[in-house]
Amino acid sequence: MNVTVRGRARHFRTVAFDCVRNHVLLIEQRLLPHKFQIVPARDFHDTARAIRVMAVRGAGAIGAAAAYGLAQGARAFRGTSQAAFRKHVERVRAVLKAARPTAVDPVNAMNRVMAAMAAGKTIPEQQALALAAAEEFANDNVRDCQALGRHGARLIRGGMTVLTHCNAGWLAFVDVGTATAPIYAAQAQGKKFHVYCDETRPRSQGATLTAWELAQQKVPHDIIADNAAGHFMQRGKIDLVIVGSDRTLGRTGEVANKIGTYTKAVLARRHGIPFYVAIPLSSIDWNLKSGFAIPIEERHQSEVLGAWGVVAGCKAPSPPLRERAGVRWRSALTYVRVANPGSTALNPGFDVTPAELITGIITPAGIFKPRELWAKRRELGWSG
Amino acid sequence: MNVTVRGRARHFRTVAFDCVRNHVLLIEQRLLPHKFQIVPARDFHDTARAIRVMAVRGAGAIGAAAAYGLAQGARAFRGTSQAAFRKHVERVRAVLKAARPTAVDPVNAMNRVMAAMAAGKTIPEQQALALAAAEEFANDNVRDCQALGRHGARLIRGGMTVLTHCNAGWLAFVDVGTATAPIYAAQAQGKKFHVYCDETRPRSQGATLTAWELAQQKVPHDIIADNAAGHFMQRGKIDLVIVGSDRTLGRTGEVANKIGTYTKAVLARRHGIPFYVAIPLSSIDWNLKSGFAIPIEERHQSEVLGAWGVVAGCKAPSPPLRERAGVRWRSALTYVRVANPGSTALNPGFDVTPAELITGIITPAGIFKPRELWAKRRELGWSG
Repeated sequence: MNVTVRGRARHFRTVAFDCVRNHVLLIEQRLLPHKFQIVPARDFHDTARAIRVMAVRGAGAIGAAAAYGLAQGARAFRGTSQAAFRKHVERVRAVLKAARPTAVDPVNAMNRVMAAMAAGKTIPEQQALALAAAEEFANDNVRDCQALGRHGARLIRGGMTVLTHCNAGWLAFVDVGTATAPIYAAQAQGKKFHVYCDETRPRSQGATLTAWELAQQKVPHDIIADNAAGHFMQRGKIDLVIVGSDRTLGRTGEVANKIGTYTKAVLARRHGIPFYVAIPLSSIDWNLKSGFAIPIEERHQSEVLGAWGVVAGCKAPSPPLRERAGVRWRSALTYVRVANPGSTALNPGFDVTPAELITGIITPAGIFKPRELWAKRRELGWSG
Repeated sequence: MNVTVRGRARHFRTVAFDCVRNHVLLIEQRLLPHKFQIVPARDFHDTARAIRVMAVRGAGAIGAAAAYGLAQGARAFRGTSQAAFRKHVERVRAVLKAARPTAVDPVNAMNRVMAAMAAGKTIPEQQALALAAAEEFANDNVRDCQALGRHGARLIRGGMTVLTHCNAGWLAFVDVGTATAPIYAAQAQGKKFHVYCDETRPRSQGATLTAWELAQQKVPHDIIADNAAGHFMQRGKIDLVIVGSDRTLGRTGEVANKIGTYTKAVLARRHGIPFYVAIPLSSIDWNLKSGFAIPIEERHQSEVLGAWGVVAGCKAPSPPLRERAGVRWRSALTYVRVANPGSTALNPGFDVTPAELITGIITPAGIFKPRELWAKRRELGWSG
């Protein structure tokens, strides 16, 4: 999407590739919204590190970063022995996989690259096929988000106010995003509407990333406290809710997403407001039989007990390109302890919304009722 | 309630009076939870300033501060002319009233002091009656909260988890508080239970004031993000909700309280969890006919766009006793901008919960269904 740099709007993808220098190019997301910076990952170790420290985050984005990282690693091989090349590629794949061991997208993306390479005979051929497959993965990701956006844009009418929660925007994918895709598509169609971004405590992805994205695309929006959505719904100020999802159960239509999503679904139901979940097909889990079986990550309590931000009047400092021992890029922001120093916090990262509260699931293949997913599993990419 | 100072638990009221020095003694609430400090307001101007800058806040607490402030001002009079004394007292009252012009509690409290003074003949007599009336106001406030606590404690059983929102604790009253009164009473009865404090963004009164109070009273508790309550209710982890109220409509049973209260009531209803509102009788509004007529204060957007806290590793500095020109005591804390710098926020301070979502209203006179208030208006202090 477009980012205004020195007064000029320019198009950037979250993850891209410089094939001359063999660099993976990433938007350094830990500095947003205070500073926009493209950082080059100069070798596959750098790319793995960027995934690990969450300089790049979000299902589609880390999938593309891993695919490009694998091609980058393969292209850096200088020998002539096929056996040594295979061993090297396996090592690259293992390093990239270990960067986010529980994520499924990097694994799937790298499998695609490996399958494409198998068709090549010489090492240069295989290297070229690896890059082509990574590019294809990234382009498919963008195309899927665009298709999702076209389906979802039908839900947005002029004059509406749309509520979002957390960030399932283009920063989480290669471009366009999922929950934001209908918004960008509707805007491109000339519709005028307003967006409320839930702050999304404790990590505030709504106030930081989603608000930054919308500001770059010039989508009119306001940030609201997570506590305020119910009040605005009661007063008739919200017409539609669109959120993303980390995992959607194909068998039950249950949706796991950032903590607070379930609350918004309950409120939307009370006020008769449509509640939609926008997802790529890759996030459908066809195996689990109950939302209660989804592991809910308990995150560190410091997130609830304080906040990261920029001290008023100070510029956000430039981070060093590489992470130095013990110095995280995140330290460019200041952490303040808000809560009572003697108190502890509980910090579940996700919650599960039942199918009955979800009006529809927006996918690249169309919009479905949550309980329709299983019946349509063949067209939705089930491979069971 | 008790506060641990240098390892020893001592009893403090939020507002007290030093009749030797003629000082109003206040807990400086803007430094909590990071620093506990009693500040003396040395004359009635000082007391008015403390009310204005919210060093003391909360309905009962500012009522008592104004009552004491009026007695303090009257006692400082050194002349012998009754006319001059009356004029002086009127001036004191005007200064104290202007400190929080929309608040009703200081006005009611000072009316009680004025009425008591009218019975005195000499100036020293009137001065003594003023102080006695202020003391009586403060003691009545404590007694009311204790009565409320006895009624509410019946709702808390051993092993329960109780959810609170915002702070309607002893810091908002002279002592004991309203939403916290049942908690303290149940604890005194030896019941073992757990409390979840909603963080209560954007001002975080739950994470700061309520958590501090509970920690001082050694009530086991955890802070949770406002987004997390729905998840915990869904998982059967919350048994009871108790909140306070800024204004309860006697005619309809609707409750205005801190933004986010309505959301918790909707969630509690979905999960069949009892939802109670604890109030002093003085906060019942017998006139308004609809919750939609309650003005909802739109507060400054900086509250949503950032957070106040203590920078890790730094001690909270001691504030100067008096406010200096342009220097707020609040500056002892650091403000960080969290949100995207180009974005705006909406910040409604309160919401309105309809009677149908409220299990009961806990008052010093007993527990009532919200729609019962009007029928029982005579015993609840209606003067219409």
